[in-house]
Amino acid sequence: MTRTPPLPRIVIEPMVRRALAEDFGTAGDLTANLLIPETASAKLYFKSRGTGVVSGLQAAVLTFALVDPSVVFEVHCPDGARVRKGTVIASVEGPVRSLLMAERTALNFMGRMSGIATMTAKFVAKVAAHNVRIAATRKTTPGLRALEKRAVLHGGGHTHRGSLSDAIMVKDNHIALAGGVDKAVKAVMKGADHMAKVSIEVDTVAQFKKVLKHRPDVILLDNMSLDDLRTCVTLNKGKTTLEASGGVNIRTVAAIAATGVDVISVGALTHSAPNFDIGLDA
Amino acid sequence: MTRTPPLPRIVIEPMVRRALAEDFGTAGDLTANLLIPETASAKLYFKSRGTGVVSGLQAAVLTFALVDPSVVFEVHCPDGARVRKGTVIASVEGPVRSLLMAERTALNFMGRMSGIATMTAKFVAKVAAHNVRIAATRKTTPGLRALEKRAVLHGGGHTHRGSLSDAIMVKDNHIALAGGVDKAVKAVMKGADHMAKVSIEVDTVAQFKKVLKHRPDVILLDNMSLDDLRTCVTLNKGKTTLEASGGVNIRTVAAIAATGVDVISVGALTHSAPNFDIGLDA
Amino acid sequence: MTRTPPLPRIVIEPMVRRALAEDFGTAGDLTANLLIPETASAKLYFKSRGTGVVSGLQAAVLTFALVDPSVVFEVHCPDGARVRKGTVIASVEGPVRSLLMAERTALNFMGRMSGIATMTAKFVAKVAAHNVRIAATRKTTPGLRALEKRAVLHGGGHTHRGSLSDAIMVKDNHIALAGGVDKAVKAVMKGADHMAKVSIEVDTVAQFKKVLKHRPDVILLDNMSLDDLRTCVTLNKGKTTLEASGGVNIRTVAAIAATGVDVISVGALTHSAPNFDIGLDA
Amino acid sequence: MTRTPPLPRIVIEPMVRRALAEDFGTAGDLTANLLIPETASAKLYFKSRGTGVVSGLQAAVLTFALVDPSVVFEVHCPDGARVRKGTVIASVEGPVRSLLMAERTALNFMGRMSGIATMTAKFVAKVAAHNVRIAATRKTTPGLRALEKRAVLHGGGHTHRGSLSDAIMVKDNHIALAGGVDKAVKAVMKGADHMAKVSIEVDTVAQFKKVLKHRPDVILLDNMSLDDLRTCVTLNKGKTTLEASGGVNIRTVAAIAATGVDVISVGALTHSAPNFDIGLDA
Amino acid sequence: MTRTPPLPRIVIEPMVRRALAEDFGTAGDLTANLLIPETASAKLYFKSRGTGVVSGLQAAVLTFALVDPSVVFEVHCPDGARVRKGTVIASVEGPVRSLLMAERTALNFMGRMSGIATMTAKFVAKVAAHNVRIAATRKTTPGLRALEKRAVLHGGGHTHRGSLSDAIMVKDNHIALAGGVDKAVKAVMKGADHMAKVSIEVDTVAQFKKVLKHRPDVILLDNMSLDDLRTCVTLNKGKTTLEASGGVNIRTVAAIAATGVDVISVGALTHSAPNFDIGLDA
Amino acid sequence: MTRTPPLPRIVIEPMVRRALAEDFGTAGDLTANLLIPETASAKLYFKSRGTGVVSGLQAAVLTFALVDPSVVFEVHCPDGARVRKGTVIASVEGPVRSLLMAERTALNFMGRMSGIATMTAKFVAKVAAHNVRIAATRKTTPGLRALEKRAVLHGGGHTHRGSLSDAIMVKDNHIALAGGVDKAVKAVMKGADHMAKVSIEVDTVAQFKKVLKHRPDVILLDNMSLDDLRTCVTLNKGKTTLEASGGVNIRTVAAIAATGVDVISVGALTHSAPNFDIGLDA
Repeated sequence: MTRTPPLPRIVIEPMVRRALAEDFGTAGDLTANLLIPETASAKLYFKSRGTGVVSGLQAAVLTFALVDPSVVFEVHCPDGARVRKGTVIASVEGPVRSLLMAERTALNFMGRMSGIATMTAKFVAKVAAHNVRIAATRKTTPGLRALEKRAVLHGGGHTHRGSLSDAIMVKDNHIALAGGVDKAVKAVMKGADHMAKVSIEVDTVAQFKKVLKHRPDVILLDNMSLDDLRTCVTLNKGKTTLEASGGVNIRTVAAIAATGVDVISVGALTHSAPNFDIGLDA
Repeated sequence: MTRTPPLPRIVIEPMVRRALAEDFGTAGDLTANLLIPETASAKLYFKSRGTGVVSGLQAAVLTFALVDPSVVFEVHCPDGARVRKGTVIASVEGPVRSLLMAERTALNFMGRMSGIATMTAKFVAKVAAHNVRIAATRKTTPGLRALEKRAVLHGGGHTHRGSLSDAIMVKDNHIALAGGVDKAVKAVMKGADHMAKVSIEVDTVAQFKKVLKHRPDVILLDNMSLDDLRTCVTLNKGKTTLEASGGVNIRTVAAIAATGVDVISVGALTHSAPNFDIGLDA
Repeated sequence: MTRTPPLPRIVIEPMVRRALAEDFGTAGDLTANLLIPETASAKLYFKSRGTGVVSGLQAAVLTFALVDPSVVFEVHCPDGARVRKGTVIASVEGPVRSLLMAERTALNFMGRMSGIATMTAKFVAKVAAHNVRIAATRKTTPGLRALEKRAVLHGGGHTHRGSLSDAIMVKDNHIALAGGVDKAVKAVMKGADHMAKVSIEVDTVAQFKKVLKHRPDVILLDNMSLDDLRTCVTLNKGKTTLEASGGVNIRTVAAIAATGVDVISVGALTHSAPNFDIGLDA
Repeated sequence: MTRTPPLPRIVIEPMVRRALAEDFGTAGDLTANLLIPETASAKLYFKSRGTGVVSGLQAAVLTFALVDPSVVFEVHCPDGARVRKGTVIASVEGPVRSLLMAERTALNFMGRMSGIATMTAKFVAKVAAHNVRIAATRKTTPGLRALEKRAVLHGGGHTHRGSLSDAIMVKDNHIALAGGVDKAVKAVMKGADHMAKVSIEVDTVAQFKKVLKHRPDVILLDNMSLDDLRTCVTLNKGKTTLEASGGVNIRTVAAIAATGVDVISVGALTHSAPNFDIGLDA
Repeated sequence: MTRTPPLPRIVIEPMVRRALAEDFGTAGDLTANLLIPETASAKLYFKSRGTGVVSGLQAAVLTFALVDPSVVFEVHCPDGARVRKGTVIASVEGPVRSLLMAERTALNFMGRMSGIATMTAKFVAKVAAHNVRIAATRKTTPGLRALEKRAVLHGGGHTHRGSLSDAIMVKDNHIALAGGVDKAVKAVMKGADHMAKVSIEVDTVAQFKKVLKHRPDVILLDNMSLDDLRTCVTLNKGKTTLEASGGVNIRTVAAIAATGVDVISVGALTHSAPNFDIGLDA
Repeated sequence: MTRTPPLPRIVIEPMVRRALAEDFGTAGDLTANLLIPETASAKLYFKSRGTGVVSGLQAAVLTFALVDPSVVFEVHCPDGARVRKGTVIASVEGPVRSLLMAERTALNFMGRMSGIATMTAKFVAKVAAHNVRIAATRKTTPGLRALEKRAVLHGGGHTHRGSLSDAIMVKDNHIALAGGVDKAVKAVMKGADHMAKVSIEVDTVAQFKKVLKHRPDVILLDNMSLDDLRTCVTLNKGKTTLEASGGVNIRTVAAIAATGVDVISVGALTHSAPNFDIGLDA
């Protein structure tokens, strides 16, 4: 997988600024103020403490830049790189005070984003034999969606809707309120912006058949059995994109992929990935 | 444990506003716009899909209030309450469009914060037999520290420094740069604000003895063996607060508690708690 | 055309707040401060001074609400309504000072948005005989895209990409840099998120034929002659959505629509619509 | 007319930041991400596609700088310069991805501001034979007043009140509520800050005579006939500044200027100027 | 002097929000959280502890409203009222936790603003026998100008330029750089917006004579002796507004007023007024 | 006293940005625009006009940097330095327009912060013979707490709680609501975060004795007579930190220090320090 280009700085700068503001309070780093001579300078290394995929480096670079532009941040393993225990991911060199003030915030970004990239890579590895994508959902940490979706890309996954205003997804409650699946799908196909894709969620094969006739861009097969998934794939004959979702986990994902669906979306990638452990060592 | 009072709204409002802005883009909810009649109204229920502790309700309440002040949010199980699979945590009633627009953001807050509260409660339960506190660290999600620290309280844990400017923590790199432990501790005891506590991190019993003479408010025993922890507790004789940290997990925490330390701090509470599953059902 | 639901308040509130801040400076309304008794109250009427379509009311309502929550804003003709010279669109009643302070900002929103809705309605009327959509582009006023896209909907038009991250549009410069049209289209079809539509821009019938083979969601026919447009429509046979753009104006739009394209996009709707004149009278 | 100095960056930076945020959403430029090699670099030229006056360059420069500080922006025709079809206004050189991401936002600023400057220059040209100023009003686009007022200067016009707190303008509704013109003017002359100018609006020659006795700094002659304007000029004998306003357009402005008023204010400059067409070409 | 109307809430809300954010950190009020029962409610009274003029109440009202909308704030002595030791200025009633959280911030606003109003009133009293105004300068606390200028009005003083973009003040360094006083004044009179007043600073009677010929709106007599001030007043014969400034203090202001100048501007009003002591008592 | 390191830029940048925005309005510096040639450049000197301690330089440096990065700011006497009348504190060199635009804002920061540092140094000098600290309170200017607390450090003083969430202070009203001093102190000692200090306020020697038994970190002796202070010091025998507060002024502070308390907190340092006069001269 080729590397994903960095996000525009303007998108992540507010995230970094508020993380630093939150950590500095009204006095900055009380400890460093008292102990670290203004002239002390050092070089520290971000080292991986496990096996995984790096992400969040862009936020880490910006964290140090906003704390002290004189700090030199050198990237050894860019976002998307696979690392093992002990791999040096990057180094920072500059005034010790600045390094200490930025350390925690930078690690908080890197740990979370690398955690997401690493979990994604595990899911992707499980389905490597199949022509299927692993995709993230909108179940992201409030305020960090851009970085988290990017972390999924770094892990080899794909994104999904970026927001409620990017594409159309019709779920069961929409259908109920719109007066049935036919009416709902027709209304959506007619009213949708010509640049917005339409996805319809179905729970049963019967619903799937009804919806397929309307040829939406995507049909979302929610919480279906493997048998039902296979039936839908067979019926579909490549007419629309099929996405499976619901209760997907690392043990079930390969079987789901084997049904022949095109996309498997996994909320856990962004809402339940454990931190990836990275240290900042001398 | 009595319930923790809500945070001032002014502290969490910016978090909720940016989460909603992120999810609404420039067009709002394309799907609801096309399908949901302006007059349709409904009552939906937040239901727990597992056993755990509720947190994040305050952010959820604010999410709906900011989307549509006419929505009525009724809390059945407040932040800090223990719930089981199927427990109704809260209900929202109002225009369906507003409910759908706010749903994902509210669940993202509740899922993450309840996940933290639930993991905290598990650690707390493991050490119930001991007079010890489980505390969170500064390893929080960038931009959400206030809510995450509060979630730890809801789970029965305690907080720690809120920021670098709240208290003084001297770690090994500070000591090295300050010219040794004696010089470092002296400098800190002399310079520290009289309202700021001082904590000194030690790795060995030898260091502990050196530091104890200075009587800092807290000594942080980092990555020590159980034997060493016990030795420090014995030497301490209640003179200062002893905090254990480093690689604490749900399997090791009880044994650490049994050594007699006063506080055990756990980064995983805020950086690796999996989402707590909550649904919004009709 | 049914009315478009209002945008979430959270999307437009920052626009209104900065407009008011810009107009109030550090002293508020010097004139009202000196002349209007605190107790004076009045009812004023927004009256149309021409024939057109109303838009921007939502921002106007919020303008008065932010200046003074005690002002009562009554909407007679909602966003999307057609009005004639003299039609009363809405009324505001409350303290005169508040009415005067909010007046200009509210009218600035209403005049611009109603201007866009009105121009859109004129384009829509010109193509009423054809099964074609009039769509806006990203050529919107910096900072006001959400409101301006909404104004296009109020005028009976459609939107388009909301932002660079909503959908994929491949233009000639992308193709050149990607090493030719085949390589570019393949790369995009392979890499695109499954929820993001793909549009490819072509300038000639020859390019169109090449691109059509890849079946992107949309082909954008840029600055083509009517003859070429007709040829593309014939070749397309309904396989993809065809969008015409480039130098469309009120005199040429009907002929373009008659070629059978599906969408005509018009930058002028948002970048060159003259103000729609509305007065606030006693 | 000498060139107007640029606005302080701090005034326009928020405008540019929110325009970019609006256009980047949570993923940045999906298309460039997929197609443009990170190493591709290019030089592109802003070319005028008509005859007019340049404005908005400062915002365009900042747009590119915020997207990518490595982009070199070279100005050939500064803000205020007159250009013809084909004139190269400026060039940008740097990474293609950055150029494409910033392009639309920069052009949106330049097109609108150059449109305003160009319309202003047309009004100014019409009154060149007279000793009169063309001035803008507060009828500006919400959130962009500073740039739009500057565009009027670039076109050879003048500004007016920057905000409600800059100067005092008494209109008919103020007079009515203050208990008549004499009371109103007296109250204002007495209470006004010594650094704030006072302008009184009149509709008739009779009112003009009453107001002139109080010698306000400016008398605004609203919607008067050419005859009445001439009468006021004659009566005034240079005692105060006379400003004509109301329904001024490009066909009537010369005759109004010929009456001898000092200032003609024109809302259309900022609320109805069509976009000035500029392209970004290889 | 009649009371000044309140500032638009939108102008002061950001000031109050950041003051509260600064005081709440990431945990809110640790003390109240631990000690005050959620149900405890109380009524507290703002009492003056000295003789002076009230100001800042509007910010105090908003402080409590933002902390807890259920708090009832009752104003007994509005902004601008004169109070003595023991006077009850206002009361607040509601949940004790909310009262304690808002107390310090509200008092910080009231103490500073009442301090400014009180000092202003003392200067105004000293010049009561003369037809002269006491005016504030731009020497205000960064970020609080709107409130501080308003406090000067509450004390019976007047404001001045609100900002660099409100009016024109030509000082000696401008004159030097512009090539002498004649050139400078001409340039300004020609270029100034017709709604912006022009003030020219002079240090000597000789300069005064030169400048008077140009009839600027205001001549600022900087650091002149009483004799020179009198000479300028005599020469002026009411032609322009004369403002004295420079080293004015409570002991010299009456003598300066007696020279016959129209305005005396005093930086100390906003940069050196001591806090006015107000308590919040049960 | 060694110099305090600068605050992180991210903490003070918002303060400087809003101060400049407030002073620039929508047009920037009208006067400089008209009079100062774009090419004029100069070097100006910040000169002390009295005897005192410098503070606020960091904000001044940032003010010029944000207005024009090409301005060279040279610091001669850093924050914390003692200066006399005529001492050159710093110089700025660059475009005259930029210098004039930034001047007032920079001086407003420097004047206020140096005023605070200077007043603090006077208090510190008065108590030099005693082993006591002078500390600031939370009575700071809304929005400027970080800079003002830093100014106190520059003057040789100490800070205190940075915010309500930094440490615990129990006052009389807390005690009353919590059901007496014993209950209150117990609740606090039990519930307090292990990194948060606890201070208890007492008014009488009797209360002091009750509280001392609980050994809080600090006991605040509020408004006590010198005799009572001495009694408390004697009883305390160094067990806890004793802080005296209430009505401390420059005439009483030495006697209070002589009682043997550890800390004297003085609200006036931040709420009533007069401006320190600094000029910007050629």
